[in-house]
Amino acid sequence: MKKIVFLIMGGLCSVIAFAQHPSLMLTRKGVSEIRAGIDKYPLLASSFREVKADADKALLNPIVVPVPADGGGGVTHEQHKKNYQYVLACGTAYQITGEKKYADYVKDMLLKYAAEYKRWPRHPKRRQEPGGKIFWQNLNDAVWGVYMIQGYDCVYDALSAADRNKIETDLFAEMVNEMSVVNSKVFNLIHNHATWNVAAVGMAGYVCGRKEWVDLALRGTAKDGKTGFLAQLDQLFSPDGYYTEGPYYQRYAILPFMVFAKAIRQYQPELNIYDYRNGVLKKAVNTSLQCTYTNKAFFPLNDAMKDKTYESEELVYAVDIAYSDFGSGNELLDIARQQNRVIVSDAGLKVAKAVAADLATPFVYTPMWISDGSNGKEGGIGILRSGSNKDQTCVVMKAASQGMGHGHFDRLNVLFYDNNTEVLNDYGAVRFLNVETKNGGGYTKENDAWGKATVAHNTLVVDRQNQFGGKMDEASKFSPQLVYFNAGKTLQVVSAVEEHAYKGVKLLRTAVLFKPDGAAGALLLDIFKATSSDKHRYDLPFWYTGHITNINFAYRANATQLLPLGDKDGYQHIWLNAEGKPGIANGAVTFLNNNKFYTTTFLSDTSLKVNFITCGANDPEFNLRSEKAYMLSAEATDRSFVSITEPHGKTNPVAEFTTGFMPAARNIRMLTDTPDSTVFSFEYNKRLYTVTIRYNSKDEFITIK
Amino acid sequence: MKKIVFLIMGGLCSVIAFAQHPSLMLTRKGVSEIRAGIDKYPLLASSFREVKADADKALLNPIVVPVPADGGGGVTHEQHKKNYQYVLACGTAYQITGEKKYADYVKDMLLKYAAEYKRWPRHPKRRQEPGGKIFWQNLNDAVWGVYMIQGYDCVYDALSAADRNKIETDLFAEMVNEMSVVNSKVFNLIHNHATWNVAAVGMAGYVCGRKEWVDLALRGTAKDGKTGFLAQLDQLFSPDGYYTEGPYYQRYAILPFMVFAKAIRQYQPELNIYDYRNGVLKKAVNTSLQCTYTNKAFFPLNDAMKDKTYESEELVYAVDIAYSDFGSGNELLDIARQQNRVIVSDAGLKVAKAVAADLATPFVYTPMWISDGSNGKEGGIGILRSGSNKDQTCVVMKAASQGMGHGHFDRLNVLFYDNNTEVLNDYGAVRFLNVETKNGGGYTKENDAWGKATVAHNTLVVDRQNQFGGKMDEASKFSPQLVYFNAGKTLQVVSAVEEHAYKGVKLLRTAVLFKPDGAAGALLLDIFKATSSDKHRYDLPFWYTGHITNINFAYRANATQLLPLGDKDGYQHIWLNAEGKPGIANGAVTFLNNNKFYTTTFLSDTSLKVNFITCGANDPEFNLRSEKAYMLSAEATDRSFVSITEPHGKTNPVAEFTTGFMPAARNIRMLTDTPDSTVFSFEYNKRLYTVTIRYNSKDEFITIK
Repeated sequence: MKKIVFLIMGGLCSVIAFAQHPSLMLTRKGVSEIRAGIDKYPLLASSFREVKADADKALLNPIVVPVPADGGGGVTHEQHKKNYQYVLACGTAYQITGEKKYADYVKDMLLKYAAEYKRWPRHPKRRQEPGGKIFWQNLNDAVWGVYMIQGYDCVYDALSAADRNKIETDLFAEMVNEMSVVNSKVFNLIHNHATWNVAAVGMAGYVCGRKEWVDLALRGTAKDGKTGFLAQLDQLFSPDGYYTEGPYYQRYAILPFMVFAKAIRQYQPELNIYDYRNGVLKKAVNTSLQCTYTNKAFFPLNDAMKDKTYESEELVYAVDIAYSDFGSGNELLDIARQQNRVIVSDAGLKVAKAVAADLATPFVYTPMWISDGSNGKEGGIGILRSGSNKDQTCVVMKAASQGMGHGHFDRLNVLFYDNNTEVLNDYGAVRFLNVETKNGGGYTKENDAWGKATVAHNTLVVDRQNQFGGKMDEASKFSPQLVYFNAGKTLQVVSAVEEHAYKGVKLLRTAVLFKPDGAAGALLLDIFKATSSDKHRYDLPFWYTGHITNINFAYRANATQLLPLGDKDGYQHIWLNAEGKPGIANGAVTFLNNNKFYTTTFLSDTSLKVNFITCGANDPEFNLRSEKAYMLSAEATDRSFVSITEPHGKTNPVAEFTTGFMPAARNIRMLTDTPDSTVFSFEYNKRLYTVTIRYNSKDEFITIK
Repeated sequence: MKKIVFLIMGGLCSVIAFAQHPSLMLTRKGVSEIRAGIDKYPLLASSFREVKADADKALLNPIVVPVPADGGGGVTHEQHKKNYQYVLACGTAYQITGEKKYADYVKDMLLKYAAEYKRWPRHPKRRQEPGGKIFWQNLNDAVWGVYMIQGYDCVYDALSAADRNKIETDLFAEMVNEMSVVNSKVFNLIHNHATWNVAAVGMAGYVCGRKEWVDLALRGTAKDGKTGFLAQLDQLFSPDGYYTEGPYYQRYAILPFMVFAKAIRQYQPELNIYDYRNGVLKKAVNTSLQCTYTNKAFFPLNDAMKDKTYESEELVYAVDIAYSDFGSGNELLDIARQQNRVIVSDAGLKVAKAVAADLATPFVYTPMWISDGSNGKEGGIGILRSGSNKDQTCVVMKAASQGMGHGHFDRLNVLFYDNNTEVLNDYGAVRFLNVETKNGGGYTKENDAWGKATVAHNTLVVDRQNQFGGKMDEASKFSPQLVYFNAGKTLQVVSAVEEHAYKGVKLLRTAVLFKPDGAAGALLLDIFKATSSDKHRYDLPFWYTGHITNINFAYRANATQLLPLGDKDGYQHIWLNAEGKPGIANGAVTFLNNNKFYTTTFLSDTSLKVNFITCGANDPEFNLRSEKAYMLSAEATDRSFVSITEPHGKTNPVAEFTTGFMPAARNIRMLTDTPDSTVFSFEYNKRLYTVTIRYNSKDEFITIK
């Protein structure tokens, strides 16, 4: 059975060519190849087994389409989520096996929704107005749509015209109305929520042969191209493929971007969507992966759940499509192998086939500057890497733009990874995803008060205040700027400046990954320069993972009483455990993390104070983790914080041995420090190194001799 | 070359038969079989590769025998440790390869020690008097001896008579003097330190043909059998093979017990050492393994480093010897496979051969009562287990005797494991093993003040005091007693009583692992009954791993100030975060741990208080971890704490779904509670269960209907 539809779109070609079903992630041609491939390619076989197991599980239970009632993680929420997963699983299983029972399940489910959908009121636990219908957020409704339409596409040919008519009229047309009319404000945003919406509506347009829906999706409800998918591609990504909300949301948004692009490619190849903006989607997939560490987790910048890895489903879609359609290269197969699954689809088939042919090469983590902003001029992320994928040291400097509502006030924040774990970390979001007893699974109030606060990050806090006064609108007006980036063999450096976060204070941070002669690994040299004509209090926290094993200076512990360090801007959430003054010698704090030692050795003088702090004050609902930091503190007009964070030694608790529990870097001395340059020396294994940074020189920005 | 020695020992047979070298873990016959086996058995091959790599690494560097100076983890400490490991590696490599360079290394090393040993003073950082010579503890000297004598045995035949004489006279005879004369107090203890000492001295006696040393080792310096190896075997193990100091030290002591027993078996088979006390060593190996959870870690009872697993070298020795010499069965091969190595030895050969023949069967974790005390009447450990090795729920009740100086004041302590992780946990020891900056790698002072304190454990604290006033001598006089143990299919139970920990208070605890109809896993029912004629304050903490997601009653949080809960007996180390009163309804606290939910639902009344607490007050040196607990508290004469701890639901942060975040057990009601019986009911998934416990009935101790 074949449906021929003639549609003319904005002067472009018709969508005749692909008006057969399925034509999204699966095509007729693909399906026959997949059937043959399941016997040959283990990754495809196991992935299909999973899909089929899900489909069979779906068939075991009666179809339940409850009246929407619960927030994230609640019963009706999870049921509707299961429903769309089951529909896609059964749709796929129908295509591959040809067994009618799977198609019937999808049909029955869709007819049930078609019968109910219109009757439901707005969601009783909605978080915005007008808000979602099936779920508490309109966003989840859109995700539901992206899955459901794929399931429908898979069984399209198995349905009667009458059933199709009922489903398209009473469900998908209503859904499109919900998204593009009722929630048009969201639909027309330049934001990941809008991407899910336009993907659902646009794919529904292709599958149902409703050109006007595709039009809305591509060019916005005003059809002027100022919003919609193309405008999102223009504005949400930088030329380097960085998504402005940060890696966590880049992961989330990549699925609708990729799946909808694939649909556009199938139905309207003449749009050359894969080449749009010099192939920005191909870059986006690579950038997503480059924004992970060897523990597979995304850098938890901005609002981020820290356990998200590239094993998440979104990245399986992205990697499969990038490999099969973008020619992204065999290193992607390394990731696919670790994901240990493919999407049962034309794209997944190619990946599974290539993995079976043993074509995978190791994924190449590359030190890089990733620009932010649609024009690439709104700062970015600097990533330094040293070592192999098995034993890598990595530094991340966040010098990106605010990243909209999920952005943190953490410009020039530095993360440090080593030994496959976080060493200097970012708290991420204060959220218990899908745990309904925790604010319905949404961000808790501490996310604004703590998660976003400047002091919750490894960056300088001026006068104990948040950057930009904690005001997103203000922060969105300015971006940090790249001063210098270079990644050589023994020396990698990123330097960035932020001049607007605090009025009258210039913040300039330079992070260097440097491996001295004979060192087992690279050191992080960190030079944070604050310049002002007025006196300020500067606080520089180091939030670490591990347990302190040594402090080389005297301090006073608050052994019998803990008080918060302040009353606002995140300080209200900090307990002060101890404070010390290293004096004129270098201070050094050593901790043990994952059986390896780390020491931050830092320049000190008589005015420097060090606070030892723990997160958790003013947390009556137990929403915060007890994370710990040492924080350097000084009052000054100009102040340069110079430190070396060094991985060293190890301890093996099973075999019971310990080596190198004391650091080799020592005796940091400032030689000269002017607005144009910083020169300091340090010793490593008794050898003297002099570091010269010339902030205005692109030719010879840094030398270490 | 063969040395024939005639020695008569205590009326028993001579040691002629085995007066060839090597004759400890390796024998001549074994060596030739091992050479052939390396090509055939992968586990032997990889284990030998490791030994040879170590030996080759040793050869790369000049021999360094420094004057002893540092504490645990320090430079000279680690060097001397490396030396004995290198000597054994080179000795073994010499036997297998026949390459002289390895024998030369051992010779040079031993001669160097022989030249230096006598000159060294007592260790400058010694922790006891007279104390160690090479190391800060005499114990480490003995460990050194156990390894060195094996290395010497391996190269014995390759040395000249003159070199042997020098080594035996200037080193081993001096070592024996150090241990049996200078440190005779330790040598004659009934304690693991003494076991290491007698093993070193006894094996030196066999290898050097010095019968008198063997005599000392077997029967103590007075040669009356009141101390020495046989007395240790008599007194340190229970008839069930439980080592009184607890699983962590059982692991540690098992190596010298096994290796020395093997030596005795080789040289004096007529002693039938393997059958001693009905094969107590065979039982000890099995008990060691039964005292682990599926995460491979030993139950961290008493002073214990929590990361110790059965992958540690001691257990590799134990498993190899038990399999090859004791006939311990193919389930041990499952452990060997996970250890992923064997000792390159006669025993290891047999294990590797059996593993290669695919004879391994899964290790069988058995619910059991393990008696403590040389007569088996000093309490014990009750272990309940439900589920497979992949997904096991496990309850441990500690009702053992004090366990000497490393014992904690934690009678009737209950640990709860699930989902391959700790759920209700034990802090273990306050120690940073081998980290010299942390009290020289030894126990920190918080180990006494916190680690051993009653309140640091999941057991009842009376009047905020330690059991037995924290006095070891007092505590050593009494043991808890088993009331009842049974492990059925749907119901497992352990019940024990402690009548002396607090004057005038009888403590009776019953832990039940019970799987209601339709439950995914088993619940822990916990009935803790305190009886007294006087009024007392009873505190029952639940130290948990995870993050609180729900509390079903009102509480007041100490949001802006934390104070210690007390000033002694561990309470000085507790911050009080919040306190609440559940009232007459059941209280319930839910937390998330390793992506699974756990709820403790407990009987309450208007007098019950719940404290939410964190460890870490009065910790000026940052020695404590920030562990957390909820603690039930009431003032009463008699009081029964009844609770259900239930694993439920799960959350998958990568795939983003959550199920069952609320518990199914609820509505606990006490029906009757007398000195002889406790009857209570609860609902699970709307079904009512009535639990009847008859404390005096062995026939029908518990029914759940």
